[in-house]
Amino acid sequence: MFESIDTPALLLDVEKLERNCARMRERLHSNGVVLRPHVKTAKCVEVARVALDAPAGPITVSTLREPEYFFDHGFRDILYAVGMVPGKVPRVAELTRRGARITTIVDSVEAAQSLADAAKKAAMRIPVLAEIDSDGHRAGIAPGDPRLLAVADALGDAFQGVMTHAGDSYNCDSIEAIRAVAERERDAVVKSAAALRAHGHPSPVVSVGSTPTATFAASFRGVSEVRTGVYMFQDLVMAGLGVCGVDDIALSVLGSVIGHQRGKNWVVTDAGWMALSRDRGTARQKVDQGYGVVCGADGKPIEDLVVIEANQEHGIVARRGGGAIDFARFPIGSLLRVLPNHACATAAQHGEYHLLRDNDPIDVWERFNGW
Amino acid sequence: MFESIDTPALLLDVEKLERNCARMRERLHSNGVVLRPHVKTAKCVEVARVALDAPAGPITVSTLREPEYFFDHGFRDILYAVGMVPGKVPRVAELTRRGARITTIVDSVEAAQSLADAAKKAAMRIPVLAEIDSDGHRAGIAPGDPRLLAVADALGDAFQGVMTHAGDSYNCDSIEAIRAVAERERDAVVKSAAALRAHGHPSPVVSVGSTPTATFAASFRGVSEVRTGVYMFQDLVMAGLGVCGVDDIALSVLGSVIGHQRGKNWVVTDAGWMALSRDRGTARQKVDQGYGVVCGADGKPIEDLVVIEANQEHGIVARRGGGAIDFARFPIGSLLRVLPNHACATAAQHGEYHLLRDNDPIDVWERFNGW
Repeated sequence: MFESIDTPALLLDVEKLERNCARMRERLHSNGVVLRPHVKTAKCVEVARVALDAPAGPITVSTLREPEYFFDHGFRDILYAVGMVPGKVPRVAELTRRGARITTIVDSVEAAQSLADAAKKAAMRIPVLAEIDSDGHRAGIAPGDPRLLAVADALGDAFQGVMTHAGDSYNCDSIEAIRAVAERERDAVVKSAAALRAHGHPSPVVSVGSTPTATFAASFRGVSEVRTGVYMFQDLVMAGLGVCGVDDIALSVLGSVIGHQRGKNWVVTDAGWMALSRDRGTARQKVDQGYGVVCGADGKPIEDLVVIEANQEHGIVARRGGGAIDFARFPIGSLLRVLPNHACATAAQHGEYHLLRDNDPIDVWERFNGW
Repeated sequence: MFESIDTPALLLDVEKLERNCARMRERLHSNGVVLRPHVKTAKCVEVARVALDAPAGPITVSTLREPEYFFDHGFRDILYAVGMVPGKVPRVAELTRRGARITTIVDSVEAAQSLADAAKKAAMRIPVLAEIDSDGHRAGIAPGDPRLLAVADALGDAFQGVMTHAGDSYNCDSIEAIRAVAERERDAVVKSAAALRAHGHPSPVVSVGSTPTATFAASFRGVSEVRTGVYMFQDLVMAGLGVCGVDDIALSVLGSVIGHQRGKNWVVTDAGWMALSRDRGTARQKVDQGYGVVCGADGKPIEDLVVIEANQEHGIVARRGGGAIDFARFPIGSLLRVLPNHACATAAQHGEYHLLRDNDPIDVWERFNGW
């Protein structure tokens, strides 16, 4: 069924994509919050349109190449969710001049001041959010830290509110734990926004996001928008967290069997880390999926087969924990599919998605990388 | 000095590249073996020309996009060093028709027979090597396995000899251990070629290769050519093995400081795993370099600073093992450079090399990815 596709290649099951996107959209809309999908995972306008069920809409990005590309495809309301620095102002200013609304983020008075100065020099108002640190995981100002008010003061009417990312949700070992992280995420920004408003900063934007917390949060009270990206494709890390089932994973890497190591019970394929990525996100989960779960060409997992090791253009497929392989099932040149640990990392290794409907290739969607 | 470069970006110190390439070329030429550089690391015609010190020459590739690109740039003698399958014959046949000599590899009678059949159907002779397994690491026929002769017999006069890759050299803990792996690598192919010749297969090609074994092998007796790629750039894994010094590493990722987490002694940058890759090749070495060694903009390592954690577009820089950071040295917007664990993986995350000479950007060389 895949004769037209050279291996290795990235496959995207469009029915699963549509189902994953509809589910998240309905959940957030029924909770009265705006969905601002993170397009860093897909980096593809067609996927973003499925996520929004519209030709354009509010999106989140993590590089400046993304807003440049998406603006050229009709997207206007874009949050650049990585700490802004003065050197990046010219590209944001250029997009702003062309009619985009690029909201930026900062987490220090130093960055806020330099951004305010740069915007003044460029004679334009660049909207800014303060990044709040809701879980000690990465960037942001801790809730209650007086520097938050100083940031808002430095930005004046460019200041639009607060955002946070509960990256720690990826490390949870139960849905209850994810719910607790989600509540901490919500609480951190809602309280921060309240403190800002008490000091005269309207702070209309209260933004949270991660696929696990977006999926399981018990409440979005006080939240204005949710940013999430991985849910479109889902992946083995999300399945390991209970966020989705393995059957919801829309991405897979198609590879060819190129060799048999019978003495070791290894099937060797041409889908190595260049096609799968080096991401080992399930290594710290209850079930370590190696470099990915191996499926037949029909996309159904083959009992216990995982990619146990990956070289640049070689994947080594074996039973989890060892055991005999029936090599007659995997002749040289036959096709396998590998479900990814981490959709963002695996997709980034490819320049296009081969779209499947009913397991038949129907189209190719381009994606891009770079900054 | 890097005002013209948006971060994150991949830098290539051309003097280090030239020095690394000249050193390997001189070593192999003085040993009387052909250097067939592996261009999978660089995927860039300008880098290959530095490696060969010539406009073209024999090369090794790991995808079919590589020979298509390099043939268009004047390269003719190309070894595709990943097990061949029938589905890939049309692209190899097309290049062969256009005048390229694409040598392929197989490690089973099944693959040999199907390749012979496909070549016959395409009415062309595609040269083939048998892959020998010299270290139990990946693919190949074990030395002494009678299937080797059956492979050669199945291929007839398309059969050209043997090749192996001592991937296990990456796991050595001393130079003596690398020398032992190199001798095993040499011995495996030299003995295999002798056995083939005794049965009437001339087997002119006896090919070995890995950067550690190419660097330290005590003898290349009986070897016709050496394939090696990482040496051009070098990396922290090679430095950890003693193959090079940290000062020989020609690649680095330029990033901007985007935040400070003072309570945790973290400097946050915009060089995350998207720019650095997810490769953690030094994790199993004596010194774990995290996601890379952090240097100033001048390319000199800053005492004990490594990237301890990486998100997609965020790198977290801290002292190895913890310790106070003097944040005044790393203002928001200032530049850092990160030396890569694994040159192949880090380069693959980028679309171009920003060339430096005397630490000044002098040019941009394009590179490609994909299959």
